Amino acid sequence: MSKDKISRTEISELGEFGLIDHLTKNIKIRNKSTIKGIGDDAAVIKNKNLLTLVSNDLLLEGVHFDMVYTPLKHLGYKSAVVNFSDIAAMNGIPKQLIIGISISNRFSIEALDEFYSGLLLACEKYNVDLVGGDTTSSPSGLFISITVIGEVDEKNIAYRSGAKTNDLLCVTGDLGGAYMGLLLLEREKEVFKSDPNMQPDLGGFDYVLKRQLKPEARTDIVEILRKQNIKPTSMIDISDGLASEIFHICKNSKTSCSVYEDKIPIDSLTVSVAEDFKIDPTIAALSGGEDYELLFTISQNDFEKIKEIEDISIIGHITDSSESKNLITRSGTVIPLEAQGWKAM
Amino acid sequence: MSKDKISRTEISELGEFGLIDHLTKNIKIRNKSTIKGIGDDAAVIKNKNLLTLVSNDLLLEGVHFDMVYTPLKHLGYKSAVVNFSDIAAMNGIPKQLIIGISISNRFSIEALDEFYSGLLLACEKYNVDLVGGDTTSSPSGLFISITVIGEVDEKNIAYRSGAKTNDLLCVTGDLGGAYMGLLLLEREKEVFKSDPNMQPDLGGFDYVLKRQLKPEARTDIVEILRKQNIKPTSMIDISDGLASEIFHICKNSKTSCSVYEDKIPIDSLTVSVAEDFKIDPTIAALSGGEDYELLFTISQNDFEKIKEIEDISIIGHITDSSESKNLITRSGTVIPLEAQGWKAM
Repeated sequence: MSKDKISRTEISELGEFGLIDHLTKNIKIRNKSTIKGIGDDAAVIKNKNLLTLVSNDLLLEGVHFDMVYTPLKHLGYKSAVVNFSDIAAMNGIPKQLIIGISISNRFSIEALDEFYSGLLLACEKYNVDLVGGDTTSSPSGLFISITVIGEVDEKNIAYRSGAKTNDLLCVTGDLGGAYMGLLLLEREKEVFKSDPNMQPDLGGFDYVLKRQLKPEARTDIVEILRKQNIKPTSMIDISDGLASEIFHICKNSKTSCSVYEDKIPIDSLTVSVAEDFKIDPTIAALSGGEDYELLFTISQNDFEKIKEIEDISIIGHITDSSESKNLITRSGTVIPLEAQGWKAM
Repeated sequence: MSKDKISRTEISELGEFGLIDHLTKNIKIRNKSTIKGIGDDAAVIKNKNLLTLVSNDLLLEGVHFDMVYTPLKHLGYKSAVVNFSDIAAMNGIPKQLIIGISISNRFSIEALDEFYSGLLLACEKYNVDLVGGDTTSSPSGLFISITVIGEVDEKNIAYRSGAKTNDLLCVTGDLGGAYMGLLLLEREKEVFKSDPNMQPDLGGFDYVLKRQLKPEARTDIVEILRKQNIKPTSMIDISDGLASEIFHICKNSKTSCSVYEDKIPIDSLTVSVAEDFKIDPTIAALSGGEDYELLFTISQNDFEKIKEIEDISIIGHITDSSESKNLITRSGTVIPLEAQGWKAM
């Protein structure tokens, strides 16, 4: 550790993406079967014409979830689903799951059972096999590592990098709800801390709470697109907010885009909660995160087919890289689209 | 969490294997491509006649490593190698690696670089591609999750369950060294704690320290066995001590075994350090752990071929399940083989 004394760069100086770039810049690919390494939602490994997809996520107590308001069963379910969503984001279907879990002795077997019951419920719903696991003791807190393996035919794989000028930009479901659910839970936690006898006031907010606590992965859309013979030109899942994901697609595809505010799908409950918190619902959708919907682009030739599919909204189109990334507001004003990323510590 | 109030079983009541059995008893396999789920060193996924192997391990500061005496570069190297060893234990070759790392802000970029340099050195040496990663902040400490993907031809895969009566029991390299390295490091730590001005006294102990801090995975043996056309009937890597791994093979293969004390390979430095610590070197080999050598069984028909291979010792043979698991001591006494497992918290 003597190097530390000579030079010390704080992780916060680089930010998330700077840190990833820094750590991965010297990585070389050596095996022909490695089709895709770092830089997309999952790694891709070739086996004849079937591609194996592998994705890993970490979830830490106090960073990714708060035990005060996260039921363990929901946590197990969500831990699995966020990884299934990474596989869906490659236009693939999740098939196997490996769980690594570190627990302190403040958790009982019954608590661990609750977590597993949620995990297995997600596996059952998505037809995924739990094929391995590692359980170890933790000095404090709960730490979860999930690896999901999926598959996709070579001809159907969708990377972040395939969007072309004039392609249509599509999203599934509605956006901003998960963030509103989080704000509600955080508010109730503060109320509880100041007066533990207060009863939580969460009635009528089921939809946004479910978006936060029990999200779903859009493998259903992957299957519908396949049936309709639509191959997305690029695809990503919305874990960090719509704007940030659009930026990833544009950066990787070397394009820009125009997004129409009035086309962004937002549920009416999300709108009313956002207004309660004095937040513009569009900002909630653009920057909220954790919706786990799919963002993808398709060729204009597929317009007739896509407009028939329920639960998909066309929110804009891809433009040439010489253009700016624009948001066209409800009033018709053109403003720059802005992305808020994750800040390291 | 209301269930907690009704019934609470401490994790320590079940022990490691009881806990795994408990958590996995309701797991069903749903996909035809899932050849092997929980219960071996890695999951197995079928793609035509090539099998994909996936393994995940967690490493926690304070549980699996001690930052006081673990250089970060060595930690990166070892984190990768212990997972490569899991793939070798299926008679496979590691191909891809995914790293998940959670770090607190007490670590600088330079510290993280040291870790990555060790990780990438291992990838280079073993010809493995780093294909993905997740880096997040941690409220405290360092937490590492590694997923390794490997491959093996269907006809060469070796499970824990294939040993047959009269098969020869073989191990690679020598045993007990990694544990002696750990004892030395722990002793120096205590000395340092009582007098920080004391210089560490680790000269001449290079071999056992390297066994602990920078172990290797025996993919070289996997390749030699393939070239010699020897297919192990069963295989496992030695992470928890020889005795414990023999028990796994016997349990999964429904057999017993006879092991000859004088055939267990132990390096002369391991013997002398063990004697310093007043530990029987055989106990160090049987229960020490972290050697990451391979334990495997072969048909007696392969005896002529195996005895020509350097660095492989035949230490005994498989017996019928009606027999006891025996250790035949140097003096010729037959005593029961005993395994010490990991105890949960």
